[in-house]
Amino acid sequence: MTKRALVHRISATAPDDVSGIEAAIAAGRIDPNGVIAVLAKTEGNGLVNDFSRGHATLALSLLFERHLRAADAKQICLVMSGGTEGAMAPHWVVFERASGAGNPDSKTRSLAIGRAHTPPLPFEHLGRGAQVDQVAAGVLAAMLDAGITDPAHVHFVQVKCPLLIAQRVGDADRRGVSVATRDTLKSMGLSRAASALGVAVALGELPRGAISDADIGADWSLWSGRASASAGIELNNHEIVVMGMSPAWSGPLAIDHAVMDDAVDVEPVRAALTRLGLAANGQLTPTQRTQLIALLGKAEASHDGLLRGHRHTMLDDSDIAATRHARAFVCGALAGLVGHAEIYVSGGAEHQGPDGGGPVALIVDRTGL
Amino acid sequence: MTKRALVHRISATAPDDVSGIEAAIAAGRIDPNGVIAVLAKTEGNGLVNDFSRGHATLALSLLFERHLRAADAKQICLVMSGGTEGAMAPHWVVFERASGAGNPDSKTRSLAIGRAHTPPLPFEHLGRGAQVDQVAAGVLAAMLDAGITDPAHVHFVQVKCPLLIAQRVGDADRRGVSVATRDTLKSMGLSRAASALGVAVALGELPRGAISDADIGADWSLWSGRASASAGIELNNHEIVVMGMSPAWSGPLAIDHAVMDDAVDVEPVRAALTRLGLAANGQLTPTQRTQLIALLGKAEASHDGLLRGHRHTMLDDSDIAATRHARAFVCGALAGLVGHAEIYVSGGAEHQGPDGGGPVALIVDRTGL
Amino acid sequence: MTKRALVHRISATAPDDVSGIEAAIAAGRIDPNGVIAVLAKTEGNGLVNDFSRGHATLALSLLFERHLRAADAKQICLVMSGGTEGAMAPHWVVFERASGAGNPDSKTRSLAIGRAHTPPLPFEHLGRGAQVDQVAAGVLAAMLDAGITDPAHVHFVQVKCPLLIAQRVGDADRRGVSVATRDTLKSMGLSRAASALGVAVALGELPRGAISDADIGADWSLWSGRASASAGIELNNHEIVVMGMSPAWSGPLAIDHAVMDDAVDVEPVRAALTRLGLAANGQLTPTQRTQLIALLGKAEASHDGLLRGHRHTMLDDSDIAATRHARAFVCGALAGLVGHAEIYVSGGAEHQGPDGGGPVALIVDRTGL
Amino acid sequence: MTKRALVHRISATAPDDVSGIEAAIAAGRIDPNGVIAVLAKTEGNGLVNDFSRGHATLALSLLFERHLRAADAKQICLVMSGGTEGAMAPHWVVFERASGAGNPDSKTRSLAIGRAHTPPLPFEHLGRGAQVDQVAAGVLAAMLDAGITDPAHVHFVQVKCPLLIAQRVGDADRRGVSVATRDTLKSMGLSRAASALGVAVALGELPRGAISDADIGADWSLWSGRASASAGIELNNHEIVVMGMSPAWSGPLAIDHAVMDDAVDVEPVRAALTRLGLAANGQLTPTQRTQLIALLGKAEASHDGLLRGHRHTMLDDSDIAATRHARAFVCGALAGLVGHAEIYVSGGAEHQGPDGGGPVALIVDRTGL
Repeated sequence: MTKRALVHRISATAPDDVSGIEAAIAAGRIDPNGVIAVLAKTEGNGLVNDFSRGHATLALSLLFERHLRAADAKQICLVMSGGTEGAMAPHWVVFERASGAGNPDSKTRSLAIGRAHTPPLPFEHLGRGAQVDQVAAGVLAAMLDAGITDPAHVHFVQVKCPLLIAQRVGDADRRGVSVATRDTLKSMGLSRAASALGVAVALGELPRGAISDADIGADWSLWSGRASASAGIELNNHEIVVMGMSPAWSGPLAIDHAVMDDAVDVEPVRAALTRLGLAANGQLTPTQRTQLIALLGKAEASHDGLLRGHRHTMLDDSDIAATRHARAFVCGALAGLVGHAEIYVSGGAEHQGPDGGGPVALIVDRTGL
Repeated sequence: MTKRALVHRISATAPDDVSGIEAAIAAGRIDPNGVIAVLAKTEGNGLVNDFSRGHATLALSLLFERHLRAADAKQICLVMSGGTEGAMAPHWVVFERASGAGNPDSKTRSLAIGRAHTPPLPFEHLGRGAQVDQVAAGVLAAMLDAGITDPAHVHFVQVKCPLLIAQRVGDADRRGVSVATRDTLKSMGLSRAASALGVAVALGELPRGAISDADIGADWSLWSGRASASAGIELNNHEIVVMGMSPAWSGPLAIDHAVMDDAVDVEPVRAALTRLGLAANGQLTPTQRTQLIALLGKAEASHDGLLRGHRHTMLDDSDIAATRHARAFVCGALAGLVGHAEIYVSGGAEHQGPDGGGPVALIVDRTGL
Repeated sequence: MTKRALVHRISATAPDDVSGIEAAIAAGRIDPNGVIAVLAKTEGNGLVNDFSRGHATLALSLLFERHLRAADAKQICLVMSGGTEGAMAPHWVVFERASGAGNPDSKTRSLAIGRAHTPPLPFEHLGRGAQVDQVAAGVLAAMLDAGITDPAHVHFVQVKCPLLIAQRVGDADRRGVSVATRDTLKSMGLSRAASALGVAVALGELPRGAISDADIGADWSLWSGRASASAGIELNNHEIVVMGMSPAWSGPLAIDHAVMDDAVDVEPVRAALTRLGLAANGQLTPTQRTQLIALLGKAEASHDGLLRGHRHTMLDDSDIAATRHARAFVCGALAGLVGHAEIYVSGGAEHQGPDGGGPVALIVDRTGL
Repeated sequence: MTKRALVHRISATAPDDVSGIEAAIAAGRIDPNGVIAVLAKTEGNGLVNDFSRGHATLALSLLFERHLRAADAKQICLVMSGGTEGAMAPHWVVFERASGAGNPDSKTRSLAIGRAHTPPLPFEHLGRGAQVDQVAAGVLAAMLDAGITDPAHVHFVQVKCPLLIAQRVGDADRRGVSVATRDTLKSMGLSRAASALGVAVALGELPRGAISDADIGADWSLWSGRASASAGIELNNHEIVVMGMSPAWSGPLAIDHAVMDDAVDVEPVRAALTRLGLAANGQLTPTQRTQLIALLGKAEASHDGLLRGHRHTMLDDSDIAATRHARAFVCGALAGLVGHAEIYVSGGAEHQGPDGGGPVALIVDRTGL
């Protein structure tokens, strides 16, 4: 018997608005027992003091605790990504596993999903090789959970990783160990950086030996084309969700990915849509739009301050953080292609795609294609 | 003899970096005597306390005063639009008039440009019918200056309009007259609103009788498809630049325009590019990119809080103004189409295109097309 | 038998950090059955999209639901005031009622506290006379609850009031009624304005007939010297807490208040401290500091753009809202006087004290004085 | 013959509003030939992209070039400090030298002022020992210019120092040298840090040998009690102004200084005012207020995240930079003491006073005292 992945994209009217998920459960469209992960775009600043993520996490936890035993509810990966700049629509993406029809058949493959929780990260490991290793191990565990053995079949790995705050730095100080940075905002970038490299190692995109501590958050020539990492104050370990294609899974859903080379490089995304059956010269048609279940992407400001030779001001802006600028802009570029903005664009793409670019995953319902 | 319009797009490394224009003058590529207007994207917040606009204006004035008599330098329209959110590149667009080759020929038309300065706006008129009238008269003067008689040949009207600050409100109070709003940020929107309706009246898009004071900044069903208005603290009158096509002008430059129906509606822009000779299924090719001399557009957050049925959070964000979000996002959508972000996207599109959308002008060099 | 008011000021390490309250309950220092209100400064922006307030509210609700029946937990007024700009310390102020010693004695008075919840506010009433009336009635109910009959014995009235968001405006539209403003940020000011005038009416500071709809949020000569109003997205009615002095209450706590005439007018606060037994020429001494249990104040930018003849830039700043500036500044002025910054300074003092100033309440433990 | 220092505090209505200085020159109150420095608070964000500083600098330069030979105008130190958070009033402080009455008399001392410009700072030196040395040499030159030989007679040293931007980092890269940080905002702090330590060395507060590169911006136990440093994009060297007391100078002006131990530590400032003849228990009286010509102070968020044991949120706020919070708050504390907010509070007090505190200078007109 195969397994079957279901992906539900549900709008949110506030960070704690889980009513859409609740309604889907009530109507039988979602079985809470099958839910393994919820990814979400919440409407805070996506930075250190973003309380929308924690608020959403608490609301989701309370929701699932009403339907599941507490221990089971805790197993669900909650990956809140703050920041819905521009016209990006706050929404939930619920990943569910169910029984599939038929037996595994090597000829047809479908979306496969798995998840893992790592142990808590000792905060002196944040942004260093030990975090790379911890995440790499977590990705392998999540692949196992998804039943994917060949890393080539993995199309996207979403990692939620922790960050440093003054208290955590203080704890490290008291234990006599040094942290990689004392700057809380910077710790978000380092945590995403090490997490992305951990994905790259697990997927065989980079040999572990190629990565020294000094490269993390510094050598942008090292990157994964399938990692997406998001840092948050609301956890102290990693939550990892792996998405790929597998013959052991059935159903109409399929995933593919693209790597944007810079913030306006939408053509590889168009090509991936075409491979998935959604060919479009211009913008996706209204019908195609309904067939695209989820778009998951990354955005960042290129470190050389340039986009195709023209200066951008994102890194010199002390009023609005560069990640906020980048999310708004890249969401605009992708929304111009797919025709709406209820898409998941996460900021800070350190080692996630080339500098200034980033990976994009596309989940499509092939019914009728 | 025809006239000929030249349009120079020049990068800026800072709000007061006029070195690129200076170099073009030194090299003979720009004749300062022919310059009638400079439009620019400067890197401030684009809101009330945006000093990048005034700084740029001062730097430009000093530049032109080095080359022209002060009175002549003052005639140049300086339309500084603040806000280069996302990856938008700060840049100057210099509009120059020169002698053309050949005689006017009704069969071929080229880009025609004209400008006008209105008298100072009494501040109690801001956001009211009297401002609509003043701008409408100014547009007609600028059309006359461009030698365009048929409003149908006008493709874009850029208006720089004033705003209220505490002092100006105080002046009005002392004179015993009432201002339309005491909220300085809101006055920017009202000024843009009345200016856009003034363009609509001048171009025959709306009958003057259809516009009451209460409609200004309120009834979004009233709009111009060719107006672009930008408010700034650095002037107390209006600077108006009209762009169109005319047989009395020659040269390779041509203009066309599109109206975006919402913030992701890039297909009308693609169609306009096709009409101008730059057909592209996906993104413009690198060659086409060099043929697109300038893109001038507008961005705003739709007032119903929705984009194609999905919620946006721009209007509920108290940290980042909605205009800043909208500029970043729409710039991303347009840059995804044209392949770079050195484009002019101005925020606050009240009565400039339908609610949430906006007009876009495209200036193309037809050489080789 | 008298009643006795207890006031517990407890630090918070995050918006949802109720561990200090939990510990006080566990240690028997707080009896949850006696808690009638929690006021708090939470660390969001204090504006429309401040999720720290809702997050704190949810955490407090869950806390009290662990100790009380749900219906009783709901009776506790939760007044979250967002915005801890400058060095203001996030903290909870828990108001508890207990049995007092001895019988009421007209010669000695102690802190008396009461609270009320109003019905939901129809949103078309927000910022209008009907809201004034609803709040005035609520204040009288809270006075009754506190056992205070003479309005002169009331020293402070804290009101948490609702605001408008796009959805609520849309609801009103659908019901065919008009709202006072469609600008969500502005609705916060109007709601605070009407609430403050409601307090003024209830306390006899202003006759109801003196207040027309047009005066609300406009005529700053109308004000209460004892009202403090704070708007939030997380409620749709009003939560009202009244504090005063009464012979029916016993215990060491006392309250007095002062009215700051402008943002640096700290001398009236010094005078009130002196009346309460904490005389100090300069800053309070460390011992006096421990005797000052709570300071509750208001901050706002004066509408004429001036402070003692010098210009402030708070109203022309489009990057940081004026309320945020004002809270940081006034907190600094008050902290300079009392010697620390774990004080409750709430922003937006419309009709709460004279324009640019505001009321301040001081709760002191007279033990040993 | 003695020299005489004049200090003019003049309000500004905008960053480029030099009309007050112009009027003082026209009225003969200021002789432009004697002006050696202008310090100013301008109303930008005080961070990397603060164009109010450059705009003010340009306006001042144009002003002085109208009255002086260009080379002489260039000699005037222009120290623009951005950020007028809270109610801080934008203003100019013009320092002028004139002939004094009488001969030097060792018994009476008056305000003495001097200035120096250092050579351009190679940007790889920024935040390192070489910058410390360059500033120390500059301070000694400015002392010489002021005729002060004993460092003990120096009360305040204001340094305007440069910062890194992407371009400057790129230049360094191309020259094959490494910069101390690639983070532009962080470079402001490092530049201030090295500058302050340079002052400490020149004044004998710290031995040069006590300062290693690793201490700069890191070991907060090293500090000057008289340094004030402000970083800006508009210069590439240092402008240094020294203020002290000297018998070679005459006139009614006197200076003293205090060191605040933390952000609410106003009592040392009160003591300094008392020493200068302005004793006040509470706030300065209106008369005393006019006798206080200028207050120059520093503000910063303490790095341990605490103020007198209570948490502040300045370092975890990703919406508003910590320096902006700190300026607003400390300005409030000082304004509560002196009774108005047209004072110069500059942000980022690295090595300027103890961590979280900072030096404050007070210039008083002793006439009538």
